Amino acid sequence: MSDYDFELFVIGGGSGGVRAARLAAGLGKRVAIAEEYRFGGTCVIRGCVPKKLFVYASQFPEHFEDAEGYGWHVGERRFSWPDLIAAKDKEITRLEGLYRKGLENAGAEILESRAEIIGPHRLRLSASGQEVTAEKILIAVGGAPNPHPEMPGSELCISSNEAFHLDELPKSIAITGGGYIAVEFANIFNGLGVETTLIYRGPEILRGFDMDMRTNLREAMEKKGIRVVCRDTIVDVAQAADGRLKAQTHNGHVFNVDKVMMALGRLPNTKGLGLETIGVKTDAKGAIIVDDYSRTNVDHVYALGDVTDRVQLTPVAIHEAMCFIETEYKNNPTKPDHDLIATAVFSQPEIGTVGLPEDVAAERYEELEVYLAKFRPMKATLSGRDEKTVMKLIVNAADRKVVGAHILGHEAGEMAQLIGVALKGGCTKDDFDRTMAVHPTATEELVTMYSPTYRVKNGERV
Amino acid sequence: MSDYDFELFVIGGGSGGVRAARLAAGLGKRVAIAEEYRFGGTCVIRGCVPKKLFVYASQFPEHFEDAEGYGWHVGERRFSWPDLIAAKDKEITRLEGLYRKGLENAGAEILESRAEIIGPHRLRLSASGQEVTAEKILIAVGGAPNPHPEMPGSELCISSNEAFHLDELPKSIAITGGGYIAVEFANIFNGLGVETTLIYRGPEILRGFDMDMRTNLREAMEKKGIRVVCRDTIVDVAQAADGRLKAQTHNGHVFNVDKVMMALGRLPNTKGLGLETIGVKTDAKGAIIVDDYSRTNVDHVYALGDVTDRVQLTPVAIHEAMCFIETEYKNNPTKPDHDLIATAVFSQPEIGTVGLPEDVAAERYEELEVYLAKFRPMKATLSGRDEKTVMKLIVNAADRKVVGAHILGHEAGEMAQLIGVALKGGCTKDDFDRTMAVHPTATEELVTMYSPTYRVKNGERV
Repeated sequence: MSDYDFELFVIGGGSGGVRAARLAAGLGKRVAIAEEYRFGGTCVIRGCVPKKLFVYASQFPEHFEDAEGYGWHVGERRFSWPDLIAAKDKEITRLEGLYRKGLENAGAEILESRAEIIGPHRLRLSASGQEVTAEKILIAVGGAPNPHPEMPGSELCISSNEAFHLDELPKSIAITGGGYIAVEFANIFNGLGVETTLIYRGPEILRGFDMDMRTNLREAMEKKGIRVVCRDTIVDVAQAADGRLKAQTHNGHVFNVDKVMMALGRLPNTKGLGLETIGVKTDAKGAIIVDDYSRTNVDHVYALGDVTDRVQLTPVAIHEAMCFIETEYKNNPTKPDHDLIATAVFSQPEIGTVGLPEDVAAERYEELEVYLAKFRPMKATLSGRDEKTVMKLIVNAADRKVVGAHILGHEAGEMAQLIGVALKGGCTKDDFDRTMAVHPTATEELVTMYSPTYRVKNGERV
Repeated sequence: MSDYDFELFVIGGGSGGVRAARLAAGLGKRVAIAEEYRFGGTCVIRGCVPKKLFVYASQFPEHFEDAEGYGWHVGERRFSWPDLIAAKDKEITRLEGLYRKGLENAGAEILESRAEIIGPHRLRLSASGQEVTAEKILIAVGGAPNPHPEMPGSELCISSNEAFHLDELPKSIAITGGGYIAVEFANIFNGLGVETTLIYRGPEILRGFDMDMRTNLREAMEKKGIRVVCRDTIVDVAQAADGRLKAQTHNGHVFNVDKVMMALGRLPNTKGLGLETIGVKTDAKGAIIVDDYSRTNVDHVYALGDVTDRVQLTPVAIHEAMCFIETEYKNNPTKPDHDLIATAVFSQPEIGTVGLPEDVAAERYEELEVYLAKFRPMKATLSGRDEKTVMKLIVNAADRKVVGAHILGHEAGEMAQLIGVALKGGCTKDDFDRTMAVHPTATEELVTMYSPTYRVKNGERV
């Protein structure tokens, strides 16, 4: 029995921290978890969950339109932003309650306070000033949108945090950034009827994704009416006399909009944690440096999730937490497995992806077979909607392993999840070929592409 | 060079016949294909394709309702059945054109006629009376709904064929049958506002499927307002004075409805084909008996697709056609692979399934691990819709192979297609466990079920 107040002190009540605290407490450990805002973290409170609810909300206008081609005549429709916000907030509160209940049921002590490290095993709770001791400290404080204070007018801009709580829906918005958060919000706002401009410094949105996904999604977004401006960036935001914002870009464009949203990366929440007091090392970005077992350089101090800036995804933080528990409390040293992580972009249409984009695969393998299908989804035949589904498999010619799968289309996230199982299990293109089609589906395309669309040899398309 | 008019004569322009004719013609063979009605077969003309278009049409009322929870207020909506039929017919005609074009481009001769076998290598075309000769004959004439002429009033009933062309949408319908066609149409009609009753002789709908899928789907259908009557069957249909129909059941119930639809199985279209002339053997149901290579008992006569009553699915017929071509024209003997066929029921919600139902798996394996999740889909949180998604994995405990996967929920067909790849590739439950979740999706449930819900040992749940 340790002499500390707690055997484990978790800082941060997000997905990773809550899972670690709950599991450790369930094993009979004396556990405290400190959270200064709301339990659930970015994912539940101002990330994945409310974002996907917004996505659903923003898809209804297309349902109303599509209905016409199927014999439906739909009368006038109105949208109430406050109603959506209220419904969303109610659901988030319900989910937060579930997180708390899980912790309580497991017997973890919940501390509604910011916690600061003031000694190797000592923490101070800001809310009460109380000091507590802990044998092990787990830091899972996550990250936050980069506010870019160096940009003139950055204080006039919103981030994704504020986007979830705007008093009213803007008539127009300019979003700066080209990552998945920028792209998802551009689609949400556009779907809800907001005049939307996306401004991104790079040559194409969604750096790091397969280029066929990037270009086809951008084209789909443009067809829906989103203005996408690449190779440019907002350099100055000012308030005009009418209260609107004037966003000026590097290339000299000026956008007069109701709101400007910055989605230019996220930063680890390490400021003011007291890391320097005990010498926990961070990188240039402020992310806590950890080894393969989520251990910091300070013995008995661990970190996981977004604050470590490995892979910033909810399931990864949860997985890291489960590995931490196995390693530290179940005598079963387990490294988090960051290989072949399937992910989704909840754009409209979605992107679902697992494995390597073509350009990366081309560097890694001598010869690739690339299978590419682009087709109109069945529902669009009668709706008349001008949209395409894109499916792509990248195969290592040497052993026929599928090394990348990329889908742009409805429910691509669900698809990526399941292709992820097949790829994790080492399935080859032959396994895809031997699978009978399910008809009529979109995914049957993935098992009926018998000949490569093209090959890539030594990095060159042939 | 053979002395026959054609090297291959295909009877029947459905999915299997068209694929065989197209591929053989593409290899330079002299090919004819005879079709008495429309090219595309059951699937395109009066099956999978128009059915799924109807499913889309019937889902819009739920979209309109769900929208309310997301801040949308939707005005009055009306549905026009004739508009849907016209749009559907236009699309079917387009698809039929694509089938024809594929045949023409490959160089197959298209004969718009019924063809009857009148000698070992000789056929007569009913339309012209012309006689032609062929080296090989491939029978791919499909099947048709069983009309059950022995039931009094059966001539007053419709089948799925007529359901695609009703002059007007009935106000009420009784559907007799419990298979996927009966179930799909019950959901379609109900979604379009028709008062729908499903009457099925067995104890539960969808015989042959996993029991958790069967009961949960039935309950979901009942919640939507479909009246499901099991352990009963319609024994008599009569026309009432008001023009409506009076359907009497074995158990003494009487249903007064506008339409009665029979979906009580399908029969092979072998009557009047001339099979007996050359001695092609059929089974008691009239299905052509074939060996592993789709060969009938008569040398040079082959059969595939629904007329052989192996697995009545479009992709299976196409697969059998491709195997036939490999075997007969590419010197590569290939047996159709009927193992681990993923399928979908386009009910609402859908069922997607691959591998064994629990009861069959329990007979085959000594010990099973069963993983079962039942949860409210995320979209239903704000819409308030009372619905559940059900996901089930059945694992052989001995080697941890996943031997069955069953899903009831939105897009379950798409999911089954991709789980089909994983199962075909021999993935184990460990592969599922090692796969990172994609959040938030429904399918992440399939990779985060770490402990069995229960086990089955020697056929007993423990």
